[in-house]
Amino acid sequence: MNLNVNNILVIGLGIIGSSIALSAKSKGINVHGFDSDSSITEHAIKSDVIDQSVSTLESINSKEYAKDLDLIIIAVPPKQTLDVLNNLYEVWNTNTTITDTSSVKNHIKIENVSNIVLSHPIAGSDKSGIDAADKNLFINKKNVLCNPFNANKDHFKKVESFWKDALQMRTALMSVSEHDLIFAMTSHLPHLIAYALIDSIRLSTTEVGDNAGAGLKEFLRLSGSNPEMWRDIFTLNRVDLIKALAGMQISLNNLLELITESKEIPDIFSHLEMLREELDEIKSYKETKF
Amino acid sequence: MNLNVNNILVIGLGIIGSSIALSAKSKGINVHGFDSDSSITEHAIKSDVIDQSVSTLESINSKEYAKDLDLIIIAVPPKQTLDVLNNLYEVWNTNTTITDTSSVKNHIKIENVSNIVLSHPIAGSDKSGIDAADKNLFINKKNVLCNPFNANKDHFKKVESFWKDALQMRTALMSVSEHDLIFAMTSHLPHLIAYALIDSIRLSTTEVGDNAGAGLKEFLRLSGSNPEMWRDIFTLNRVDLIKALAGMQISLNNLLELITESKEIPDIFSHLEMLREELDEIKSYKETKF
Repeated sequence: MNLNVNNILVIGLGIIGSSIALSAKSKGINVHGFDSDSSITEHAIKSDVIDQSVSTLESINSKEYAKDLDLIIIAVPPKQTLDVLNNLYEVWNTNTTITDTSSVKNHIKIENVSNIVLSHPIAGSDKSGIDAADKNLFINKKNVLCNPFNANKDHFKKVESFWKDALQMRTALMSVSEHDLIFAMTSHLPHLIAYALIDSIRLSTTEVGDNAGAGLKEFLRLSGSNPEMWRDIFTLNRVDLIKALAGMQISLNNLLELITESKEIPDIFSHLEMLREELDEIKSYKETKF
Repeated sequence: MNLNVNNILVIGLGIIGSSIALSAKSKGINVHGFDSDSSITEHAIKSDVIDQSVSTLESINSKEYAKDLDLIIIAVPPKQTLDVLNNLYEVWNTNTTITDTSSVKNHIKIENVSNIVLSHPIAGSDKSGIDAADKNLFINKKNVLCNPFNANKDHFKKVESFWKDALQMRTALMSVSEHDLIFAMTSHLPHLIAYALIDSIRLSTTEVGDNAGAGLKEFLRLSGSNPEMWRDIFTLNRVDLIKALAGMQISLNNLLELITESKEIPDIFSHLEMLREELDEIKSYKETKF
């Protein structure tokens, strides 16, 4: 395959970064790797996840070091993504392209850069860490690209081609606001709800034992995902997440009205009334504000 | 295997009833079958899901017909379960044991019967109908038994032995109130939430396209389950369902407080305040009433 990416650096060797590294290596790309935990970087070298290691972020922030790299991929949790980007200022506006893998994008704000293109490879897993790395994790999955800094065509094409040709992904282009709202609805809210449901079962005085139906097992799986990443996602995308939640509460209200149409439940009637009022308030709020 | 069940009748040939029929037949049990849709009963005979058919519920409600049956299993949606039980009054208090498969139990009230034992085989599927029948659907799954009518030992043992020895399930005994609350938390609420989330995405003006992460796909699968059965479950178990929902709202409130601790979101602040107040109300209601 004629790839226009021959040398990459992956920053952050969790499941996403190390899976990208493995997949790129399998296509003959030379992969440098760095993790802020040096024992993970060493483990990555020993287990052939990367070809070469870098020992500090400071040494990456150098035109001299970066000049042989075609692409730097930042694969750390969402909040750290912006920190790392800010710490690579020497590489801004060079021929080396920089991209990321964050599930939230609205907080990534940098001025006057032309070589940063944002990526979101949609390949969730309830596993985490380098030992869960899988070179086939991304095959045929979707990767949403955002170009909020108007990176020039060469940088954009390089990122797009890396995901498509090297990692065999489909790509789509979205604005940051479109991306964050859509994934609030389709990914962040389902995970928030899963955490809440599992937490309520944990806190309950009712012992549910091993009586989990298939439904709950999926919620358990979702709520077992990387907590640092999800804390960042929920916090950074809270505005869209609450919009999505307000939408869900309206649908939930409609369902509760259907379910409780009967008048046979006087002992919880005041509670139902309360739920209805709340949800009507949310509904009218949503209609006027969003 | 020495089974003390040789002849059974399965009423309702959806995925649950026809899977029970197939599994029992594979153990050499003679299986009669009936579905209120006669074309399904005919299809069951032709495709060897059952050995013999019955054409009307009236003909089942007869001591003469039932005397050769060891066990009648009612595998219809929860509301119909009570109707069918009521329509089999000629078989009450005979040597033929009657059981069901309903996911909700609190509505099943019959007086002065000694041969009815309730069963809930925990084997969900997002498929439905006779063509999805699977003789291995129940193997190693759990079956919760309830004995609200104090059926005598012989009837109870017969039902327990059928699930354990013929269908290779594990069994557990619970009270009806324990059963309905536990499954409200572990099964009914997850399904309600899945319906609400999918409905809110359907109603949204935001086009989510094919951007469903793994999380949403599980919700889609859950919300694709048999709608008549789920309408019955939600309606009949609404009291416990709302208790479970109130618990989840408290956990959701706690998460929202953590997520929105920052003061950077003035434009949705009133909405957040509103959510907090609602959930505080639910919390104090729950603490005083439940």
